[in-house]
Amino acid sequence: MNQKEKTSYKNSHIDEFELINEIKSLTKTKHKENIKGIDDDAAISKYGDKYLAISTDIFTEGIHFDLTYTPLKHLGYKCVVANISDITAMNVLPKNILISLAVSSKMNKEHVMDFYKGVFLACENYNLDLIGGDTSSSLTGFTVSVTIFGDKKNKNQLVYRNTAKEGDIIFVTGDFGAAYLGLQILEREKKIFLEHPESQPNLNNYDYVVGRQLKPEARTDIVDFFKKNKITPTSMIDVSDGLSSEILHICKSSNVGCDIHLKKIPIHEESIKVSQELGIDEITCALNGGEDYELVFTANPKHLNILLNQGFSSIGVIKNKKDGCNMILENNDKTELKSMGWSNKL
Amino acid sequence: MNQKEKTSYKNSHIDEFELINEIKSLTKTKHKENIKGIDDDAAISKYGDKYLAISTDIFTEGIHFDLTYTPLKHLGYKCVVANISDITAMNVLPKNILISLAVSSKMNKEHVMDFYKGVFLACENYNLDLIGGDTSSSLTGFTVSVTIFGDKKNKNQLVYRNTAKEGDIIFVTGDFGAAYLGLQILEREKKIFLEHPESQPNLNNYDYVVGRQLKPEARTDIVDFFKKNKITPTSMIDVSDGLSSEILHICKSSNVGCDIHLKKIPIHEESIKVSQELGIDEITCALNGGEDYELVFTANPKHLNILLNQGFSSIGVIKNKKDGCNMILENNDKTELKSMGWSNKL
Repeated sequence: MNQKEKTSYKNSHIDEFELINEIKSLTKTKHKENIKGIDDDAAISKYGDKYLAISTDIFTEGIHFDLTYTPLKHLGYKCVVANISDITAMNVLPKNILISLAVSSKMNKEHVMDFYKGVFLACENYNLDLIGGDTSSSLTGFTVSVTIFGDKKNKNQLVYRNTAKEGDIIFVTGDFGAAYLGLQILEREKKIFLEHPESQPNLNNYDYVVGRQLKPEARTDIVDFFKKNKITPTSMIDVSDGLSSEILHICKSSNVGCDIHLKKIPIHEESIKVSQELGIDEITCALNGGEDYELVFTANPKHLNILLNQGFSSIGVIKNKKDGCNMILENNDKTELKSMGWSNKL
Repeated sequence: MNQKEKTSYKNSHIDEFELINEIKSLTKTKHKENIKGIDDDAAISKYGDKYLAISTDIFTEGIHFDLTYTPLKHLGYKCVVANISDITAMNVLPKNILISLAVSSKMNKEHVMDFYKGVFLACENYNLDLIGGDTSSSLTGFTVSVTIFGDKKNKNQLVYRNTAKEGDIIFVTGDFGAAYLGLQILEREKKIFLEHPESQPNLNNYDYVVGRQLKPEARTDIVDFFKKNKITPTSMIDVSDGLSSEILHICKSSNVGCDIHLKKIPIHEESIKVSQELGIDEITCALNGGEDYELVFTANPKHLNILLNQGFSSIGVIKNKKDGCNMILENNDKTELKSMGWSNKL
């Protein structure tokens, strides 16, 4: 039921969106200061003369990460970055973080401190203070829960996912599919290692995709850019689950349709090479891969030039709801935009 | 590393306090708005003209709860109450909550909704808004992470654990040991059930202790009482781990000693009966049991009468550090106050 509905019931027969909707329908907000609740990347509460954006994420071993090939320092960094990305999607810079861990009996103190090295590095890089948390043991796997918050003075600069308008241009901040492809490479090498324990993982030529999987960064730079250029996107969401799924969230909650031009979706050169090597369609990876931690946002067409000059890519346009959500193929054919609902890790 | 250092490494060889201290020593606070960090029940940040108190807890199956005898609705209620208790210990009323779940494959949607029934009931009873969270699946047990926050306008009414002064009276808000004894009864009935599956649990005559274990309440009433009577305790902490352990936290962080009069520690009549039945010393239970979710606070002696009239119990006095932390026995002998470090559930 995450504010951004990031669920990964890989091993479950529970329909996560049904569950979120049921919880949402039973939730009654009593305090007028709470102006945004369960249905966005972060909740927004008015505190004094500021608006507090707060978000929380949970990561479990075997579902979101595999310690066979994920160094604990990288995991600590990534858990923080994933949560930063949620706040950034509200156009807010995060300031504080709380971390709770349930530590498995396989782990010793050095393991936990390795995890924290990643947390501290992310705190340093993103100007965050670690102000609290909880630790417990776990009878089974390692579990991480991260809560992050930051604030905004100007209410009008907060950006939600349900405010895209017909005619807005759809932009993305970077390229897509690489984190998913990096995961496939790591899984392949793990399989080889399990079958041939004497082998060494071969990660040459996969720097970019493996880096995007193991050490992603969050696009906090975009908050500064928008402020400096006095631009407020009409809607925004972070890409943790997959580009198509996130665009569909914007459209559904904004009650609009869209046209997405597939050939305009940025895909890194190495991602194209790796997807060919693995025999996966690169566009399918880009649309469904997830974990890229880039942002999708919509903006008034008047900002087109400055946004393109900044290096963002325009990949489509917001349409009337009755037009539906569509992908425009290379040959200009139209087909319905769907999320394949891949249960990506993290 | 919880703000209140509630750790339960039952199955681990990690020294939790060593870990917390190491994390704390590596934590550098960059934002001047953060006025209280890892070393209290909740962190405090200045937001606009208000002071935000925020705390987080993690609960794992098999460590903090046993679903054999814990109804999911009760668990939902208790997870929220435990976190409310943290904020209350700062003399702040909680306002908002975020819940993250990692759901095991044994659970279906109805199980999750049963858990949320308890969450919603606690939100109703304690005037809280559920504003966000995250859901994920878990390869193994059920894990719950709760983050709670509230605010205070007047900085001087915030209460920490490191500000007790020599000569202050030590008060408690209720009785101790019952939650632990309730747990022992539930564990005993579980054992009987596992050996004799045809048997029915016998919980007659254990209403109070089992109720304190399965459906605890948090002492938010005390925040209203202090406000109404214009009293600010000199220090406060909630009793989740055990009374002696919490008093020692206050003394250590305030750099003071104490005398605790054992005969003054309130113990419920049923707790005395049950402890006799189980052959456990009731004072040992009261000092080490944990999960009572009462509060220990210190106050200037001038407030003695009004606090006693309110039904709080004075159990001792804050002394100079050089006097040490002592228990005064029935025969007036003095012995060092120690925490047995029982790893209580939750």
